[in-house]
Amino acid sequence: MIKGIVLVSGGLDSLVTASIAQQECDEIYFLHLNYGQKTERKELESFQKLQKFYKPIDSLIVDISYLKQIGGSSLTDDSIAVKDFTGEIEVPDSYVPFRNAHLVTIATSWAEVIDANRIYIGVVEEDSSGYPDCREEFYESLQKTIDLGTKEETNIRIHIPIVHKNKSEIIKIGFELGAPFEHSWSCYKNNDIACGTCDSCVLRLRAFKKIGIKDPIPYLVNN
Amino acid sequence: MIKGIVLVSGGLDSLVTASIAQQECDEIYFLHLNYGQKTERKELESFQKLQKFYKPIDSLIVDISYLKQIGGSSLTDDSIAVKDFTGEIEVPDSYVPFRNAHLVTIATSWAEVIDANRIYIGVVEEDSSGYPDCREEFYESLQKTIDLGTKEETNIRIHIPIVHKNKSEIIKIGFELGAPFEHSWSCYKNNDIACGTCDSCVLRLRAFKKIGIKDPIPYLVNN
Repeated sequence: MIKGIVLVSGGLDSLVTASIAQQECDEIYFLHLNYGQKTERKELESFQKLQKFYKPIDSLIVDISYLKQIGGSSLTDDSIAVKDFTGEIEVPDSYVPFRNAHLVTIATSWAEVIDANRIYIGVVEEDSSGYPDCREEFYESLQKTIDLGTKEETNIRIHIPIVHKNKSEIIKIGFELGAPFEHSWSCYKNNDIACGTCDSCVLRLRAFKKIGIKDPIPYLVNN
Repeated sequence: MIKGIVLVSGGLDSLVTASIAQQECDEIYFLHLNYGQKTERKELESFQKLQKFYKPIDSLIVDISYLKQIGGSSLTDDSIAVKDFTGEIEVPDSYVPFRNAHLVTIATSWAEVIDANRIYIGVVEEDSSGYPDCREEFYESLQKTIDLGTKEETNIRIHIPIVHKNKSEIIKIGFELGAPFEHSWSCYKNNDIACGTCDSCVLRLRAFKKIGIKDPIPYLVNN
């Protein structure tokens, strides 16, 4: 019996990861985290639409807005503006310190309680913007940490099925699996109409353009 | 400049760890986590007394009561009673799934924002009750995970100064460093007068007795 917890932000990568998990697992469970990011209202709305679409056995929405309390990122800190895309390869302002460790750690605790044996997280190493907690070697180490820090009989595997894909490949996989792209949200800035100019929008729009498909969500700029 | 974040629950082990950190660091910062445990009211009261005593540069109190939402432990789940001490070596009901990973992960995010270079956590491998996330090898792996999941320039070391001490040794160190034991709280069950019969009380009382010192906090049973 394969029971998978999927981390579902409501973004494109987590959407496609949910479709992959649905294919691979007997049961799926959705975990959504509100960390006080500026676009949480829209992300939560996306999450709820995805719940209706995928019908997970159970869902958990967890408040980790202490990440806003800690600050240090343009995604959570009102005093730091979300920058437009520059193409720079250094760690951007939108990096939320060690965020993905929080997501997987919470999923691990839940997995241990409900006897789930897989955690799916839609991180992307190559085509995402240089966040240190998106790299495969980070997850290998985190896997070992989970093995050592949970009960002997607990067996939880982290799955990162799109870590080495680029955005266009991810979209293609999503289309093949029938993922509802119209319900996803990627913009870092806005809650109603995507800005089209932040890192996340630019990478998404470029990828749709590359494969010649129109992104079904609305943008402020022409795409 | 050594800046250390100390995880301060308000218990005896974190009390002594705070005294050690104060000796070893130029600046100390206190982090307290409320995870919806039954004795949080008393633990928070202890934390506030310890803040007054140690005067850290800054303190952060973080709500991670999602651990109560996740459940699975007698410390957070009202449907599971806190058991009295049995001396069994298997993982007890009071195990909060993967809890210490949450504590250190939050400390890491904060450390990255305030440029702290040490995290102190008062875990004890030998004499604590078989929790998998109290073992040294778990922290070695977590250290590597932190190195991989944070920025290149970030350098955070986990310090577990009492991991191989037993409770009596810890109390002795605390006495040498002038730790205010009267402000600490260890009981898993009660918020006013310690029960004296849960795992945590029994281990504490035994250790005080062994070195011939009276524990300064009040107990329901004779000690």
